[in-house]
Amino acid sequence: MAGGDEKKSKAGGGDAKKPNAGGGAKKPNVSGGGKKKEVKKETGLGLVNRKDENFGEWYSEVVVNAELIEYYDISGCYILRPWTMAIWEEMQKFFDAEIKKMDIQNCYFPLFVSPGVLQKEKDHVEGFAPEVAWVTKSGESELEVPIAIRPTSETVMYPYYSKWIRGHRDLPLKLNQWCNVVRWEFSHPTPFIRSREFLWQEGHTAFATKAEADEEYLAIPVIKGKKSELEKFAGGLYTTSVEAFVPNTGRGIQGATSHCLGQNFAKMFEINFENEKGEKGMAWQNSWAYSTRTIGVMVMVHGDDKGLVLPPKVASVQVIVIPVPYKDADTQGIYDACSATVASLTEAGIRAKADFRDNYSPGWKYSHWELKGVPLRIEIGPKDLANNQVRAVRRDNSAKTDIPRDNLVDQVKEMLDNIQQSLFDAAKQKRDACIQTVKTWDEFVEALSQRKMIFAPWCDEEEVEVDVKARTKGEMGACKSLCSPFDQPELPEGTKCFASGKPAKKWTYWGRSY
Amino acid sequence: MAGGDEKKSKAGGGDAKKPNAGGGAKKPNVSGGGKKKEVKKETGLGLVNRKDENFGEWYSEVVVNAELIEYYDISGCYILRPWTMAIWEEMQKFFDAEIKKMDIQNCYFPLFVSPGVLQKEKDHVEGFAPEVAWVTKSGESELEVPIAIRPTSETVMYPYYSKWIRGHRDLPLKLNQWCNVVRWEFSHPTPFIRSREFLWQEGHTAFATKAEADEEYLAIPVIKGKKSELEKFAGGLYTTSVEAFVPNTGRGIQGATSHCLGQNFAKMFEINFENEKGEKGMAWQNSWAYSTRTIGVMVMVHGDDKGLVLPPKVASVQVIVIPVPYKDADTQGIYDACSATVASLTEAGIRAKADFRDNYSPGWKYSHWELKGVPLRIEIGPKDLANNQVRAVRRDNSAKTDIPRDNLVDQVKEMLDNIQQSLFDAAKQKRDACIQTVKTWDEFVEALSQRKMIFAPWCDEEEVEVDVKARTKGEMGACKSLCSPFDQPELPEGTKCFASGKPAKKWTYWGRSY
Repeated sequence: MAGGDEKKSKAGGGDAKKPNAGGGAKKPNVSGGGKKKEVKKETGLGLVNRKDENFGEWYSEVVVNAELIEYYDISGCYILRPWTMAIWEEMQKFFDAEIKKMDIQNCYFPLFVSPGVLQKEKDHVEGFAPEVAWVTKSGESELEVPIAIRPTSETVMYPYYSKWIRGHRDLPLKLNQWCNVVRWEFSHPTPFIRSREFLWQEGHTAFATKAEADEEYLAIPVIKGKKSELEKFAGGLYTTSVEAFVPNTGRGIQGATSHCLGQNFAKMFEINFENEKGEKGMAWQNSWAYSTRTIGVMVMVHGDDKGLVLPPKVASVQVIVIPVPYKDADTQGIYDACSATVASLTEAGIRAKADFRDNYSPGWKYSHWELKGVPLRIEIGPKDLANNQVRAVRRDNSAKTDIPRDNLVDQVKEMLDNIQQSLFDAAKQKRDACIQTVKTWDEFVEALSQRKMIFAPWCDEEEVEVDVKARTKGEMGACKSLCSPFDQPELPEGTKCFASGKPAKKWTYWGRSY
Repeated sequence: MAGGDEKKSKAGGGDAKKPNAGGGAKKPNVSGGGKKKEVKKETGLGLVNRKDENFGEWYSEVVVNAELIEYYDISGCYILRPWTMAIWEEMQKFFDAEIKKMDIQNCYFPLFVSPGVLQKEKDHVEGFAPEVAWVTKSGESELEVPIAIRPTSETVMYPYYSKWIRGHRDLPLKLNQWCNVVRWEFSHPTPFIRSREFLWQEGHTAFATKAEADEEYLAIPVIKGKKSELEKFAGGLYTTSVEAFVPNTGRGIQGATSHCLGQNFAKMFEINFENEKGEKGMAWQNSWAYSTRTIGVMVMVHGDDKGLVLPPKVASVQVIVIPVPYKDADTQGIYDACSATVASLTEAGIRAKADFRDNYSPGWKYSHWELKGVPLRIEIGPKDLANNQVRAVRRDNSAKTDIPRDNLVDQVKEMLDNIQQSLFDAAKQKRDACIQTVKTWDEFVEALSQRKMIFAPWCDEEEVEVDVKARTKGEMGACKSLCSPFDQPELPEGTKCFASGKPAKKWTYWGRSY
């Protein structure tokens, strides 16, 4: 799963956020109000901005016009409309089932953290402190002690892990929660990608279990690897992640991450247990998360100038059926054929819906559902009725196919599978075309100016990364390491670090990032 | 559904909360830590407190020892452990499906509310203001304007309803969200019943749709009716509710409520539309909610001195299968029979689990799963194996039945249905025994001292209710109106109000309440 994750690294604070990827803070003037009136005048629902020309404005426009998001009167907070929630529910349904298969249990810990607990792990709190929201008042009364809103729940949960874990039989302890978290960021809020409140799941396991999201689910190609010391989760031992890439902006984006917390937190929170021999042990812990941020990545990667393009697996409407009546034609027959089509597809487990609204033309409906990203459109007109067929139009490539009605379900299933795979393949191809391998600083600078995702041999030294960030700091934001892939190409003896000239230790991806 | 609801009435602030129902603020000294060690010394897992003798302490003990709740280091906040979340997930699954059947769509609005919007509906904000939590700082910076955490989402949502609703075709607008809300109450926090953060669903429909929860689901008998002017939702037109009753404390408790908001909010937030004739109309609105509070009511109503008693419909483990090996017996055969039993039940859609742990005796396991409230226990020992049967023991009445293995699924299904019904019937019987009809003030005072739920003819005047509350204010907390049932008995001409002696207008339930 190309999950979006917002777990915090030491270096996560400022520089990477400069560029305004989404133009998100501004309210676009194309939003919903009065739309229907415009519609009656215009035939199309076209977007004003084009993805290749003005990516940030395009993104803001598409998330609003496709009714994923409504801008809210508090900056950095967004309303997740039903079209978004349906996607998130599909993702939850899938992932929650996976979680349960792994014998991980759901729980719910409080939204609030007391300052003493929050500050227990020093590196951890330093990573999060600047953007913690504090409750200091209730009604008219000042609280005796300010109380933090969780930016993540390690410090919320682990004191109780310490209490619940006594003996080896209490391990592994594997809990997950679906909840909201708050990070009061001030730089460039962008719907889904960078918001002050977001929804996620956070898994917290004491004793190792590897949790890795299915990367195919959103049809987004990702690179699995390990984060650098500078970019790892604050307070953890090491962090692995899946990294996606947005070709249009040349920016990497961290997907789902897993953090091996090692024993750092166990030490601070005294998560100890007595083993079989009666000896004292200290728990090893992992935490991992993925969030609504993934939805933003999906929009950025697959969307086009007509709007959203939803992968069938997460689309709440996979097939939209549209009647195309014509003057003298058998309108009732067409409507009945539409209803029958929806019924057959629904029965076969396909999420299908018909649009029978009589105040919109078929053409308007085509544009509307294209804007909303529905993977497959089925049109039924007089000719289709006569031939006992339907016309299917793919959202991803506009290909039209006539399907005999008695072969409907099989062919639609196949097309949906095909769309899912094509979206992944197309995204991978575009992403791969953006990857450039470099060996020297000059090549690196050149590739960065071309918005590439850069693959380079590195000495793996923290000060060198700090230096790279300092030297690339500019209007577009600094470049940083994304991850060192698990799958390492050969590194011939004598290869030098692209940045320091010292002996290289590993291949690492670099780029600007969200 | 005997749902718990925490929508706020004008009068909801102080007096009704005085009595310490749960003893909840104190951390009982019987909680989880080191339990297993105690266990190895003791055979039983008995509760220290008895429901009839010391209800508040019993409640605190049972929610902790059954592993529903862990007390948290911030007063009024509780950790919902997996045993609770599994119940809540069953309730969500049921209710979310009902919501979707009614074409209500899920969405997610922000946790935060700006003060201007919160204060827009005057009566509404007065009802909630004293317990709103305010965020005033992020990191080290003061916010320019303090931001409230939602106590409920009317004011969060309705400005956008105003934007989205333009014409009659945009109605009805029916949205729901599952989320957390915060009410910073200071009086007597009690797990589930009165907590500073809780989980709920809140439905908000523009244009009328009646949403009424299934009252049978938690096997709790409820009374459907209308709240008085004093007790209705702040800012609404009128409030209907289902009211449950806890015989042990003689207190009513509001379950799921629906509020007819009338056009008050539509007026304040300008939720207008153009009708078919091009005339301007104003939306009518409802909101309705039920919350994790219901779980507390379930514990209070059904629990006994052995611990929780879960209705089968919400139990995540409906049947616990326990092997009872004996010295010379065929231990492997017994274990296999247990596994086969779980497999048969699971296949039939029954939530069954075996407890194969080898470090606990069968007797300990019986007590453990009784404490956790599992509706049906199946024991398999050498004799059962020989007779190709299992022994089933009901949690609610301890009845033992031998079931032939080839009739297992049918009989278990029947028993679970029976348990669900019995729990409801028993609770109803107990509740009914507590209802007393009175006609005069003296009878009323006498009945109140006996912790009855009182049914009385009333003049329906607000000042009379205020007076009743004043006159009954004491150590136990004041008595208030619970609801006027839709199903009204005859009110003979000339019947007088029990409190004012004026002509009575309706029959109303009265009592102390949570």
